[in-house]
Amino acid sequence: MLLIEHLDQLYAVAGAGPRAGARQGDITPIVDGAVACDGGVIVAAGTTADVRARIAPGRDTTVVDGRGHSLVPGFVDPHTHVVFAGDRRDELRRRLAGASYAEIAAAGGGILSTVNATRAASEEALAAQTAVRLAEMLAQGTTTAEAKSGYGLDTATEVRMLRVIARLNGAQPLELVPTFIGAHEVPPEYRNRQAEFVRLVIDEMIPAAAPHAEWCDVFCDRGFFTPEESTAILEAGARAGMKPRIHADELAASGGPQVAAAVGARSADHLVRVDAAGIEALRAGRVIATLLPCAAFHLKLGQFAPARDLIAAGVPVALATDVNPGGGFSPSMPFAMALACFGMHMTFEEALVASTINAAAALDRQDRIGSLEPGKQFDAVLVRGAAVTLLRVNASPIAGVYKKGVLC
Amino acid sequence: MLLIEHLDQLYAVAGAGPRAGARQGDITPIVDGAVACDGGVIVAAGTTADVRARIAPGRDTTVVDGRGHSLVPGFVDPHTHVVFAGDRRDELRRRLAGASYAEIAAAGGGILSTVNATRAASEEALAAQTAVRLAEMLAQGTTTAEAKSGYGLDTATEVRMLRVIARLNGAQPLELVPTFIGAHEVPPEYRNRQAEFVRLVIDEMIPAAAPHAEWCDVFCDRGFFTPEESTAILEAGARAGMKPRIHADELAASGGPQVAAAVGARSADHLVRVDAAGIEALRAGRVIATLLPCAAFHLKLGQFAPARDLIAAGVPVALATDVNPGGGFSPSMPFAMALACFGMHMTFEEALVASTINAAAALDRQDRIGSLEPGKQFDAVLVRGAAVTLLRVNASPIAGVYKKGVLC
Repeated sequence: MLLIEHLDQLYAVAGAGPRAGARQGDITPIVDGAVACDGGVIVAAGTTADVRARIAPGRDTTVVDGRGHSLVPGFVDPHTHVVFAGDRRDELRRRLAGASYAEIAAAGGGILSTVNATRAASEEALAAQTAVRLAEMLAQGTTTAEAKSGYGLDTATEVRMLRVIARLNGAQPLELVPTFIGAHEVPPEYRNRQAEFVRLVIDEMIPAAAPHAEWCDVFCDRGFFTPEESTAILEAGARAGMKPRIHADELAASGGPQVAAAVGARSADHLVRVDAAGIEALRAGRVIATLLPCAAFHLKLGQFAPARDLIAAGVPVALATDVNPGGGFSPSMPFAMALACFGMHMTFEEALVASTINAAAALDRQDRIGSLEPGKQFDAVLVRGAAVTLLRVNASPIAGVYKKGVLC
Repeated sequence: MLLIEHLDQLYAVAGAGPRAGARQGDITPIVDGAVACDGGVIVAAGTTADVRARIAPGRDTTVVDGRGHSLVPGFVDPHTHVVFAGDRRDELRRRLAGASYAEIAAAGGGILSTVNATRAASEEALAAQTAVRLAEMLAQGTTTAEAKSGYGLDTATEVRMLRVIARLNGAQPLELVPTFIGAHEVPPEYRNRQAEFVRLVIDEMIPAAAPHAEWCDVFCDRGFFTPEESTAILEAGARAGMKPRIHADELAASGGPQVAAAVGARSADHLVRVDAAGIEALRAGRVIATLLPCAAFHLKLGQFAPARDLIAAGVPVALATDVNPGGGFSPSMPFAMALACFGMHMTFEEALVASTINAAAALDRQDRIGSLEPGKQFDAVLVRGAAVTLLRVNASPIAGVYKKGVLC
């Protein structure tokens, strides 16, 4: 058994998460808190006095003195493109120097360079490159993350990406949730033949991917896939056993939230340009809004998603990093939280809920992770000082990360 | 002797820095670069072939294989309030939850809580708390930093803060540059008697502080000190031997740049609200614009300083962290660079110049630090991969920090 006690602050995030009438961020820390777990499962959480009254530490109990520290649930990162090959860092430098996307693409950069590198990479090479990124995410407190396909855009590579996710799940501490997104972009060989590519996704990729993926995603936005195409793809995915989620309104208010509501998507992601009708669709459809402020920041979109409007409308907000080779340069949920607080005017408590229980709900795992309550998996982040210290960027606020009760 | 060779990229930043007709950011990396230093001083820098041709490694030479890494000059942080006592992190949480500055002040928070804690702290306690922060800054690649007084607002405490700076200078690797800023705020005991406080600064504090400080600073802004008061203080400081620098236009275009030009200040800092007349004053007065995007971000000012306008006008731009207890939560020059690139539309090269040679110039040390050229001190940051990786927030791009040739 593991007992961490005398924590300055324990943010159990208990009783929070998406539910009717709830105010996001309506949580308070327990002072002099404690958590006990056994076999990776929480058996008690509360004040040190409460937990001590219920748990008698035995000979095999490891007791950790948490004084000077806080504990929060392990972060759940519900939107990443962490599996890819190649490196586009020099492209970043050139983009900051003013190169247009067209110029970068003409020089062999952009998403197609990632597609080419990923198609050329073996399963072993992809897994090795991805493992390095997962270690960075874990060090930043992420204990569960979604991971998408989408840099293959052909059936064999899409399935290989999903195999990499399966292979890495269990080979390192961070738990992965696999998502198929063959409709991430139209590959060059289908340029000007988008309808044919959509048929390929539905007829060939979805049956091949379904055994390997829990979710089906689509990039529904201006210049990518239409609401009609997205609906057809997500419905085909659902028939094959993959639950729907969606990229929506990153570049324009373009119908993604309405598609999400219509197909019963668990989460609609990005939403930088969502309008009032989109927010109402999300609310009525009980869709979680997963916001990716690091993407808006790195792509210099000039604005963030309207987090306050979403919260005011009662839409549960989750946060994610959007780790990806072209604009998702930070592996860190705490950085997403910092942008949420300082850029989207969320409170610290709202950002914490968004990064834990709401993010777990966005992956349909709210019953097992996302809060520190008895019966749940003990995934947690130990913070030096007050939990709000997590917002200190490029400092080292994290003292330790626990996954299933084990210090990583 | 130390020889680091085969670096993927060596950003020597040679020939850059404030000078007439120069374009900020007009630097290029040396591929397969090398630097040699002896006794903490650079003796050669260039391609590995060039350096090897000029330097014969001897028995006492440590040769470091830089493959897979880049090297940039050690960062110079020309604006910090790193010396203070107390902790205002819970105030941050409350501020994010919507508490007004007045509410926070009424609850005992705000700058006065720092003044009270700093007045009550011994020199030893202040030094100990500050040393922890300097270690964080050093780990982020800062090898030289300015440090201000300004939380005493009485003569004894102001001098004690400057003594702490002197004491820490040499007691740890990061070099400190002391600045007196008695006119940082009007203390409570002088409320409604601002003119009397200005007299106290000029007649009592400046003579007492001058032996301990290289620079004299003043918070010239709406609601703080007027241009006339600021001019009087900076001129008195100069007569006592302290060079002038200034907090200007953070809250409003309020005459600070004009004061800077008139008194010959080396640097005007913040400039979030600088207007065209202010920019012209800085240009004509050859004043360096030191921008503090972390402060604008953390205080949610809603905008950043107009870096592009300043650069277009030929004003040299430097970057700083503004580490302080109320809004300077990040110890990291790379985070200031990330905000400069993604928030102020600076290029990576402009941000690097701003964080090295221009920042050194803002502290009048451009002849000794700020670039990797023979004769200069070997202060440098070793980066994993390409130098642009420094912009990856909450990752760990820094592999090592050298101060005077020693790996810290």
